[in-house]
Amino acid sequence: MTHQDTIVAMATPAGAGAIAVLRLSGPDAISIASTIFFPVSGKNISEQKTHTVHLGTIKNDERIIDEVLATIFKNPNSYTGEDVVEISCHGSIFIQQEILQLCLQKGCRMAQAGEFTLRAFLNGKMDLSQAEAVADLIASDSAASHQLAIQQMRGGFSSEIKQLREELLNFASLIELELDFAEEDVEFANRDEFQKLISRITQVLKRLLDSFATGNVLKNGIPVAIVGEPNVGKSTLLNALLNEERAIVSDIAGTTRDSIEDEIIIGGISFRFIDTAGIRETDDIIEGLGIQKTFQKIEQAQVVIYLFDAQKFGLQDSKFTVEIQTIKNKYPLKNLLIVANKVDQLSKEALEQLKQTLSTITGSFHLSLSAKTGQGVEELQNTLLNFVNTGALRNNETIVTNSRHYDAMLKALDEITRVQKGMDQDLSGDLLAIDIRQALHYFGEITGEISNDELLGNIFANFCIGK
Amino acid sequence: MTHQDTIVAMATPAGAGAIAVLRLSGPDAISIASTIFFPVSGKNISEQKTHTVHLGTIKNDERIIDEVLATIFKNPNSYTGEDVVEISCHGSIFIQQEILQLCLQKGCRMAQAGEFTLRAFLNGKMDLSQAEAVADLIASDSAASHQLAIQQMRGGFSSEIKQLREELLNFASLIELELDFAEEDVEFANRDEFQKLISRITQVLKRLLDSFATGNVLKNGIPVAIVGEPNVGKSTLLNALLNEERAIVSDIAGTTRDSIEDEIIIGGISFRFIDTAGIRETDDIIEGLGIQKTFQKIEQAQVVIYLFDAQKFGLQDSKFTVEIQTIKNKYPLKNLLIVANKVDQLSKEALEQLKQTLSTITGSFHLSLSAKTGQGVEELQNTLLNFVNTGALRNNETIVTNSRHYDAMLKALDEITRVQKGMDQDLSGDLLAIDIRQALHYFGEITGEISNDELLGNIFANFCIGK
Repeated sequence: MTHQDTIVAMATPAGAGAIAVLRLSGPDAISIASTIFFPVSGKNISEQKTHTVHLGTIKNDERIIDEVLATIFKNPNSYTGEDVVEISCHGSIFIQQEILQLCLQKGCRMAQAGEFTLRAFLNGKMDLSQAEAVADLIASDSAASHQLAIQQMRGGFSSEIKQLREELLNFASLIELELDFAEEDVEFANRDEFQKLISRITQVLKRLLDSFATGNVLKNGIPVAIVGEPNVGKSTLLNALLNEERAIVSDIAGTTRDSIEDEIIIGGISFRFIDTAGIRETDDIIEGLGIQKTFQKIEQAQVVIYLFDAQKFGLQDSKFTVEIQTIKNKYPLKNLLIVANKVDQLSKEALEQLKQTLSTITGSFHLSLSAKTGQGVEELQNTLLNFVNTGALRNNETIVTNSRHYDAMLKALDEITRVQKGMDQDLSGDLLAIDIRQALHYFGEITGEISNDELLGNIFANFCIGK
Repeated sequence: MTHQDTIVAMATPAGAGAIAVLRLSGPDAISIASTIFFPVSGKNISEQKTHTVHLGTIKNDERIIDEVLATIFKNPNSYTGEDVVEISCHGSIFIQQEILQLCLQKGCRMAQAGEFTLRAFLNGKMDLSQAEAVADLIASDSAASHQLAIQQMRGGFSSEIKQLREELLNFASLIELELDFAEEDVEFANRDEFQKLISRITQVLKRLLDSFATGNVLKNGIPVAIVGEPNVGKSTLLNALLNEERAIVSDIAGTTRDSIEDEIIIGGISFRFIDTAGIRETDDIIEGLGIQKTFQKIEQAQVVIYLFDAQKFGLQDSKFTVEIQTIKNKYPLKNLLIVANKVDQLSKEALEQLKQTLSTITGSFHLSLSAKTGQGVEELQNTLLNFVNTGALRNNETIVTNSRHYDAMLKALDEITRVQKGMDQDLSGDLLAIDIRQALHYFGEITGEISNDELLGNIFANFCIGK
């Protein structure tokens, strides 16, 4: 598929820096660039080889706008598969704007979000799931989300899905061929072989669908609800967890933390800490509403930390026991972690006593720490990490992270199950064929063999402009 | 001058974008890059030609960090004059940080602010005034500041100063040679020729020094004090001026205006609007302090706009007359512009009456406009532009914008004037030589033939990291 228009956009983040990069792609990329770029060498860039860099000036008529480097990529050897020119200019916003305007004047069109990657997909440089991974890769902010994205961008499950789809397509054709010879009762498609393929597809889909829970959590972060009353030290604890990482983040000048203050990366995995008001049995209506909210937050969480002040434990242990039991009864499947804070304020004996009591009454994971001194914080981090199934990540297993892929796989599995049932019931080929075609459709949607403008529009709208 | 260490930094603005560029420079740039960059072609980048781009992966041992493009520049054909590798990666902050850390592990050092440009200077790729212009160029945010910076970066007055210094150096040598033959009373240096050179130098320096007033204003923006009481429509007027430009600025996604809300670019020139509380004769101490502040702000301004509500003019014209006269008496040399706002509320007759009265009582520039409807705003813009000497800019004359250059030129002129006096008084060669040497020193400081670590440190500290 070829595009008639040439698109342009800034490819580097907005703002002033040492340099900025502007990208042109399309059939006229090189000819448009050569009307504004004047190489020092004097040789027109259209005569230069692909993947070469040239020093020169950008001029608007006689007015010099900047001294730049222009890099030439000739189709099909470029990101988009089209002719591409990248102009690396001085990072002034004014200059970026001038060059961009000049490109528009000379016949470029402003690129839409993700349009470079869309063209890469349409020109067969990558399949749809790889294209989607490009956006994930740019958005990745932890080791886990990064690894998932790069795995998917470099193929991930695409080749496996494509291979299975190919084999399934082959059987579909054979079965459909049988229909033409219906009177003669022949079987072109070997039913034993077909049964094996269906089993293999079922197995692969189930494994991939299972991986989604892990993948989704690794990509979006693990929600952790902190249940605890005011003054038990919630924010001190978050700061203690945060401090471990801050030094690394600030290595790049200008990097600032997200406004979501409570997203903390531990061991390469992002945890989203959700503050709650705590729970307690009450007759008060307003307080009752607060408790309802706490339960809603626990509902969303994958891990629940029950945080309390160790100094108050001796006095109120029955209260704690009741609260912990309430959570356990309501959410028997949630990971619950009982954490006693401020243990630096306890005597050795009191701490020992506390630990023993906790072991007896909770039967859950429990920890004693001091967010203030940092004692026990590392143990908390390790415990949190243990709750996450990072095994698949470490073993480089293929993990599904994209809910669009998940949906398509779920539907494909549904159709494949129908096919299996049909086989079990010795259904005729024409009935089998319908379900197979439907399964093929969903397979094709994942990797983009089957796509439509609406689907593509939805996917690429989430990209940034310039990619 | 060669450096033994290889430096690295991000060259693109901080933050997430489609792509980011990391730059390595130094003797080991290519060898370090080849330990982390694995080209698809399989051919080691050290064997590739200069100015070529290569697709490949960045790996930390076996872990793939990103698919990137690496561009090779071999010394001396690079920005710094050293071997340079630019890595264009996906714009995730996480990926940028990972690759940066990897480069540091493999033996790079984090670049200091401006260190790439410092190396370019030390390796003779540009002189000092050109290097300084690079920072100005990146910071340029209006057509005027941009043109000044690019003019200076592309040579500006450097070649003229260098040429004059060369000739002066030649004479200095001849005069010093005479000293060796002092007994014989010879003149190697033709005094007539020398007189001509001194006159030429004096003329050039005076012209350049004169240009500084214009240059400084064009580079930093023209301060405009708005004198007016609350409710005369100051912010509406600023918005009316701003709106003309906003459409252009917002063409680049993510571009936001400075926090200095009142810096407005008109016709490519930056104007900095300074709000004041207005003035009026008063016995009140607190109000008196406010008026003192207003006067301080007028002091800093180059243009003063006296803004008032046209509807109130008829009632209080004597008050206005007194205030305007106060400003005129206190600052006879400032450009004063009387502006009547809200004239859309006046009848035709009242407007005519107002204009006539203004002509009679002010004797200054005056304008009638409505910030709300936009009527007369363009005339205000044109009037403001007329206050600025943009002639020099339009004629591509060399303009000095850097106060370091200005200082050095001032000192050089001082020394040259001494030399001139010495010549007039027929001073002996040995006395002349001292002043000539001193003048040569200041000339050399401008273009960097003479520099020291402290001077360079001061200059490059103002750069961003990565340039």
